[in-house]
Amino acid sequence: MATLKIPAHVPSPSEDGEQLRNAFQGWGTNEGLIISILAHRNAAQRKLIRETYAETHGEDLLKDLDKELSSDFERAVMLWALDPAERDAVLANQATKMLTANNSIIMEIGSTRSSLDLLRAKQAYQARFKKSLEEDVAYHTSGDIRKLLVSLVGIVRYEGDEVNMTLAKSEAKLLHEKIAEKAYNHEDVIRIVTTRSKAQLNATLNHYTNEFGNEIDKDLETDSEDEYLKLLRAAIKGLAYPEKYFEELLRLAINKTGTDEGALTRVVTTRAEVDLQRIADEYQRRNSVPLDRAIDNDTSGDYQKILLALLGRDE
Amino acid sequence: MATLKIPAHVPSPSEDGEQLRNAFQGWGTNEGLIISILAHRNAAQRKLIRETYAETHGEDLLKDLDKELSSDFERAVMLWALDPAERDAVLANQATKMLTANNSIIMEIGSTRSSLDLLRAKQAYQARFKKSLEEDVAYHTSGDIRKLLVSLVGIVRYEGDEVNMTLAKSEAKLLHEKIAEKAYNHEDVIRIVTTRSKAQLNATLNHYTNEFGNEIDKDLETDSEDEYLKLLRAAIKGLAYPEKYFEELLRLAINKTGTDEGALTRVVTTRAEVDLQRIADEYQRRNSVPLDRAIDNDTSGDYQKILLALLGRDE
Repeated sequence: MATLKIPAHVPSPSEDGEQLRNAFQGWGTNEGLIISILAHRNAAQRKLIRETYAETHGEDLLKDLDKELSSDFERAVMLWALDPAERDAVLANQATKMLTANNSIIMEIGSTRSSLDLLRAKQAYQARFKKSLEEDVAYHTSGDIRKLLVSLVGIVRYEGDEVNMTLAKSEAKLLHEKIAEKAYNHEDVIRIVTTRSKAQLNATLNHYTNEFGNEIDKDLETDSEDEYLKLLRAAIKGLAYPEKYFEELLRLAINKTGTDEGALTRVVTTRAEVDLQRIADEYQRRNSVPLDRAIDNDTSGDYQKILLALLGRDE
Repeated sequence: MATLKIPAHVPSPSEDGEQLRNAFQGWGTNEGLIISILAHRNAAQRKLIRETYAETHGEDLLKDLDKELSSDFERAVMLWALDPAERDAVLANQATKMLTANNSIIMEIGSTRSSLDLLRAKQAYQARFKKSLEEDVAYHTSGDIRKLLVSLVGIVRYEGDEVNMTLAKSEAKLLHEKIAEKAYNHEDVIRIVTTRSKAQLNATLNHYTNEFGNEIDKDLETDSEDEYLKLLRAAIKGLAYPEKYFEELLRLAINKTGTDEGALTRVVTTRAEVDLQRIADEYQRRNSVPLDRAIDNDTSGDYQKILLALLGRDE
């Protein structure tokens, strides 16, 4: 369930483009106007606005936004304005650059996107960067982390509902054995997590809990600073229980001394059109505070306004 | 360059379907008629014939062919009649089954297909088998062979022409170091071979030869029975010099005591619409015998007839 709210009457792409153009003109920028338009249009509508804007003004709307805006607000607007596949491509590319390297973002894209969305993100990556996402991920990582991440983003899973229960049992047993031996990087662990369909993996994890008592998440909990293990655990969560994965991410981002705006912006912009309502429900269940109120308390200004607008809470 | 010859006037799909139906009727089967139709229609035309046949007779043309034909001829007709993506899916699926396991076929599909064709084959695999190719390959393999094959079929490469020469130099050096250390299964070797675009890999291999004297193929030559190393070497050949890869495969299949019909049928049916002419040219260059004559000498009957027809040599 998305949180994005679109008005009953949506102006034409050229009207929206003209309004945005007005927001950039004269002294200062009208951030409120930008939010009132862009934060209430879906991906297809935003795409049309960008295309019409480019035709009319010969300029890329995103470049104009980039010139006019700054800091957290800018990043939120820019990420939001991008087409979802392009946005994932941009996020993933930044995550493979030396100065902005971030394996968690690559793991997140590889585990929480649908097969079709992952495929589109990879196509957008190739179109934009003239390289494959896989080669950049492989180049910037090594060892176990490379094995995990390249397969996570590389392999496009089967997305049907069919489940093989015999296989679920045998693979639950295999996972339990390897985890008991602390062989977290065993090739069969990586194989099961990175290749099985989400439905099949869910069946395996259910069987794991039924048969061995703990949820796998619990068994993978550790004090160690092992980055590989953290990524593996997060990937399993992202694959099997995405709303729990994102809830945890938001909780840590908000509760931090000094909010983690990077994570907050990423979750809100990438999920607003997908499942942000379910994530917000999970957040409230787990924290006894509505997500919009938590964000309201933790942010300010235009940045706060666009996040709340994308959460569907406009005053 | 394809070898397939299509007549100037092609009958309608329903006329073709009726003729095929006639070929099945009465005493015996008219194999010549089947060849004269199917071996002279391209993938799109064959697909229409199958669709029209199913609509008219409520039966799958392939199932009817399966009933009527046998042995090597049957396999050639069946493989040829399939849509290229479906055909790759079927070949790959058989190659992951216990009784017909064949890692070379998986390597071949992962290295010699274009990115788009590989993607389509993987989609056809999921549609037909309700699983992903990657999970089946990962499940049926282990160790280094698994690492190589899952990445080969899993990762869809960038297919543009752009080449980074600095990268080509550094990766040629890296490959040479690892090969000198006999660290053929080093993760960087697998990474470079399985993720780089074909254009980039070619630049790397050219630099390798220029800088270090030998072609990489030569440096990977060994007497050992190491299956991983053989697959790695063949994959590099399939990626960088597909016509040499297929020429060698045909040479070994034909020169064997007792022809390897499996390989011969596979190469002719999968390449007739792609590059069989280039492969045949390479064959003649390397063996001083035209490919069609070699096949003529080594096969017989209807099986011989359909192979020669697909090679564009009908009497």
